[in-house]
Amino acid sequence: MKIALIGLGSVGRGVAEMITKKDLGLTITGLADSKSGAMDSGGLDIPALLSNKKKNGYCGDRNLTALDIIEKAEYDVLVEVTPTNALSGEPAIGYIKAALARKKHVVTSNKGPIALKSKELRNMAHMSNVALRYEATVAGAIPIMHTLEQGLAGNEILALYGVLNGTCNYILTRMAAEGLTYEQALMEAREMGYAEADPTYDVKGIDAAIKLVILANTIWGNGVTLNDVDCTGIDLLTPDALRLAEDDGCTIRLIAEAIPRKRILRVSPRIIEKNHPLVVEGTLNALTLETDMAKEITLIGRGAGSVETASAIIGDLLFIKDRYDGRA
Amino acid sequence: MKIALIGLGSVGRGVAEMITKKDLGLTITGLADSKSGAMDSGGLDIPALLSNKKKNGYCGDRNLTALDIIEKAEYDVLVEVTPTNALSGEPAIGYIKAALARKKHVVTSNKGPIALKSKELRNMAHMSNVALRYEATVAGAIPIMHTLEQGLAGNEILALYGVLNGTCNYILTRMAAEGLTYEQALMEAREMGYAEADPTYDVKGIDAAIKLVILANTIWGNGVTLNDVDCTGIDLLTPDALRLAEDDGCTIRLIAEAIPRKRILRVSPRIIEKNHPLVVEGTLNALTLETDMAKEITLIGRGAGSVETASAIIGDLLFIKDRYDGRA
Repeated sequence: MKIALIGLGSVGRGVAEMITKKDLGLTITGLADSKSGAMDSGGLDIPALLSNKKKNGYCGDRNLTALDIIEKAEYDVLVEVTPTNALSGEPAIGYIKAALARKKHVVTSNKGPIALKSKELRNMAHMSNVALRYEATVAGAIPIMHTLEQGLAGNEILALYGVLNGTCNYILTRMAAEGLTYEQALMEAREMGYAEADPTYDVKGIDAAIKLVILANTIWGNGVTLNDVDCTGIDLLTPDALRLAEDDGCTIRLIAEAIPRKRILRVSPRIIEKNHPLVVEGTLNALTLETDMAKEITLIGRGAGSVETASAIIGDLLFIKDRYDGRA
Repeated sequence: MKIALIGLGSVGRGVAEMITKKDLGLTITGLADSKSGAMDSGGLDIPALLSNKKKNGYCGDRNLTALDIIEKAEYDVLVEVTPTNALSGEPAIGYIKAALARKKHVVTSNKGPIALKSKELRNMAHMSNVALRYEATVAGAIPIMHTLEQGLAGNEILALYGVLNGTCNYILTRMAAEGLTYEQALMEAREMGYAEADPTYDVKGIDAAIKLVILANTIWGNGVTLNDVDCTGIDLLTPDALRLAEDDGCTIRLIAEAIPRKRILRVSPRIIEKNHPLVVEGTLNALTLETDMAKEITLIGRGAGSVETASAIIGDLLFIKDRYDGRA
């Protein structure tokens, strides 16, 4: 199966390296970063292109854009892993539409397009009879979409609760463990590379809310948007609040929750018993699904990372390979 | 898709009720308990048969055996949910072979046949070009087989660690929480219906070891048997041992672990940090998979229960329906 890979940051590099290293029946025939592109229907020399990127800051031919690759390369699946723009979703939405218009499958790790345009993009994919998959958009390496779709097939999902932002979870873990203030823990998170220079999206709960929107629309198809999420961040939490919770055998976590029967769609710091499965440490992510037959199922794993996110993307690629075998 | 359901204990009843209640495109055309059978290629009246069973102790025609149903009914998938016999695997092995010989798919919750004869049965299924699925044999409602097969597709599984026996986990949870002796906690587990009159299989670690064998053969196809498992139970644990662990922020859990690179295949009580994702409470089950790309993924859920186990069986049925659509 032939792959066009758009985006060569941490995730794109992870995908390129894993596809090259593992014998999965996948060949990269198109590649683009923000400054250049390369294509070869017989398969690109990925180690050489990655080495170019490292040396020069771009991987391929500077006369080729990402859109050139998407529109002209020979491939079966677009893997779109450019950085998320949560406000406009661009340029990723344009990339995905261009591939769907060519009747190519799409796999993306990009939250913007799925949170903003999931219905339109899904309709386009449906009309083109191709797959649009986005396992990597929520909770990194945790195969949550596969679990909803296959592992728990036949179950009605009644509610979901998640720890979906590793930065917040790290800060809360450190505040509880060491009695740090929010500011101290944030500074530590920055030093560890777990928080960005501008941490607003993470600490205000917006990143978790975007993921909650993606999950809710995937499960219930209810067309909710970021505006529908009742969102509170962790930036006003005090060490005293955490200490009080800990005194009761509890702690505080930023929980994203969707409970349609109660019309709840919320991200907020919640007091939660320490032995609850959702109470994970450090930058881990966790999700609990409440279902009619299986009851509560919790999944825990890494929410970010180059190779960890590549795991989710490769899971989607192999799903498409398996499902559309002989056609793709 | 037409189902022959063999076994009408707690799990079989759960499956029958869920298939009847939910609109999943599944019809039960054959049914048998240990004393009787029923078949109708147009679909059986399940509520009437379940009510018979409740009233008379058997569901159908006493002149029909399970093997009659398997050999004569019109169906696409055998659902085999008779009680596990871990020593001989019978009569379930015979049932499964009879269905595979007729080129019928098989879904089972029965640990005996899969632990004892997985290679032979898988070969038979392969020759007949049908599916043999057994999600329900390990960790009840947790979709571990689906996760290994699909969610983590492309990953190499390096090791697995599991809390696979709810009875032991309940006993250990209660010993730690209340300082009970092993005997006191076992008595409580019996009163709660979590332990059988003869708890040997559970407390000696044999049930967990059987599940470990099933998982190891599924993941690595290495043909291990129960004899290869280094197995220690929880029946010699003292409250002092638990107290010492708790003093260090740890607790004790019966952990089943398989680490091929270290040639480890073991079930034993292990001291483990209390905030480790595998430390679950009560009768819950949990599994951590160590993989090359996703790194550690943990799944937590209910290890037993009528409807919970039905969830796993229905997941397998829908997988077959989806995969073999148009053929079955």
